[in-house]
Amino acid sequence: MRSMNRIHFDEIWQELTRILLALGFENSRAKRCAYIFTENTCDGVTSHGLNRFPGFVTAVKTGLVKTQVEPELVRSLGAIEQWDGMRGVGPLNAEKAMKRAIELSRGHGLGCVGLCNTNHWMRGGTYGLLAAEAGCIGICWTNTIALMPPWGSAERKIGNNPMVVCIPRGEDPILLDMAMSQFSNGKLEVLRRRGEQLPLAGGYDENGELTTDPNAILESCRALPIGYWKGSGLALVLDLMASLIANGDSTRDISQREKETGVSQVFMAIDIESQMGAANVDGKVNAIIHDFLDTPSLKGAPKVRYPGQGMLATRRENLRTGIPVEPELWQTIQRM
Amino acid sequence: MRSMNRIHFDEIWQELTRILLALGFENSRAKRCAYIFTENTCDGVTSHGLNRFPGFVTAVKTGLVKTQVEPELVRSLGAIEQWDGMRGVGPLNAEKAMKRAIELSRGHGLGCVGLCNTNHWMRGGTYGLLAAEAGCIGICWTNTIALMPPWGSAERKIGNNPMVVCIPRGEDPILLDMAMSQFSNGKLEVLRRRGEQLPLAGGYDENGELTTDPNAILESCRALPIGYWKGSGLALVLDLMASLIANGDSTRDISQREKETGVSQVFMAIDIESQMGAANVDGKVNAIIHDFLDTPSLKGAPKVRYPGQGMLATRRENLRTGIPVEPELWQTIQRM
Repeated sequence: MRSMNRIHFDEIWQELTRILLALGFENSRAKRCAYIFTENTCDGVTSHGLNRFPGFVTAVKTGLVKTQVEPELVRSLGAIEQWDGMRGVGPLNAEKAMKRAIELSRGHGLGCVGLCNTNHWMRGGTYGLLAAEAGCIGICWTNTIALMPPWGSAERKIGNNPMVVCIPRGEDPILLDMAMSQFSNGKLEVLRRRGEQLPLAGGYDENGELTTDPNAILESCRALPIGYWKGSGLALVLDLMASLIANGDSTRDISQREKETGVSQVFMAIDIESQMGAANVDGKVNAIIHDFLDTPSLKGAPKVRYPGQGMLATRRENLRTGIPVEPELWQTIQRM
Repeated sequence: MRSMNRIHFDEIWQELTRILLALGFENSRAKRCAYIFTENTCDGVTSHGLNRFPGFVTAVKTGLVKTQVEPELVRSLGAIEQWDGMRGVGPLNAEKAMKRAIELSRGHGLGCVGLCNTNHWMRGGTYGLLAAEAGCIGICWTNTIALMPPWGSAERKIGNNPMVVCIPRGEDPILLDMAMSQFSNGKLEVLRRRGEQLPLAGGYDENGELTTDPNAILESCRALPIGYWKGSGLALVLDLMASLIANGDSTRDISQREKETGVSQVFMAIDIESQMGAANVDGKVNAIIHDFLDTPSLKGAPKVRYPGQGMLATRRENLRTGIPVEPELWQTIQRM
């Protein structure tokens, strides 16, 4: 691994804000969008933080992502609403949608927002954490361009459709943030560049054999859905639900475009702390998590971890010591 | 495979009804419970139909499942309610809970019921299909006794927590019904008896190697969660959410009992046909499904299928020609 700079959160945040302001973002929106990219990086999800920022800037410059629009309400039915993202800024649209789902949950116990016609939300975990901070269980997912073959085929047809579940627990929420592919294309490409193998089979080679060779999987286009047929089915129903609830485009529709845009997303918030009391939620979650952490690990293996545990540790470390950034990437960003 | 009797749906239904009436079930509840067991068998899910019926009868006789109780409302907050299953009949409790979620969705756009203190629901798909028949997207899941080790351990600590998503589409809904383990213990035991291997790695042997040998997996207790760490994390958050939303027992609590009882379940219904119109729902779903079915299959592989497609074909075949039942099992049931 190349040596990394360690840069303070605020310095990255300011730098990204400067760039977004120059692109014509309104002041508070520039700050907020830059914050999300910075926080994703701080949390160790650089693939959906700084690494994606140059591509995001290009998408803004080419007009794929529109900076001046905000989501508009299309239809409301009590606890569920449908919004149009107007092809705006994915992370800001998603944040607004989850905030609205949280508002809806205050009156109805739970709230749901379907958001059509939006752009890549970067890291879905951002919006799950938002719900948990508000004392809600947060559930959200997005469809994507076709990235995987369904089980039994070699043709890309289904998205990897990341799904997020976040459970509030004071400063230490539980955050599951997972795509339906076993490994992301980004991960496969990184390992191919490094000449490394995957830790476990991540797809099929051209001969239909399971393989840990990232190159073979990228060549065959046969990345493995989690759990073989199960993840394939789950990806399909997530796309169906997103297209229906958002009344938006499906993976099939999106894949007919040259670049991924106009995706459909769903945001749910369940106001669990109002229903049970924050102390009761913490008590119940802690009883499960403490017991879970007591599970003996395999000989030589690291301790068993709950989803999001590593992320929170990384966040705290990086807030203290600075966020590791590849020097070349940082230079690229400073020159933007 | 042993030769099977083919028995008509109504004959099985009447036979099971007779047995439940003799156990003290009220007439309409006996009929309905027998219907669910029969339909599960008819749909090809014999593992959660007739195969489970003798065990269910034992659970009733020993008092683990209480036949005379009905779920009671504990707390209501708009679109979300919490019910106590009173350790009653799992399938009838679950049906009532999904029916209530559908009712809630009529006024609020979506409805959610958390059900604590209930028993095994047999096949979760039953309740998803119920929602789809009512024009709703149905989502439900249950926790279970500890059945799998979390990723990185060899100690059983997490449930396989089956999850169901059902999407309405006239007579042909899409039904995903999946546990978080790659293969069920039932499947492993069947293959062990037959001396057969799994089609793909389903767990680890005692040496920590991935294996297709069902015996090795049953010995090591290391069944594989779908997608390794991903299914392990998903099983954990499903348990957390079920325990919180139902204010009920977690997998940890349930596993302290001698037998699985007092599980927690969640039922959600999204009234999508009221929101979009049934024709629009069908149109959107069909556009996705028809395109999906067009995916070329791998050489020599069967055609790509959507979740629930095989089940619906099996149902129609069995309604026409009778339901295949193992002769010994049928004798056992007739003598009950």
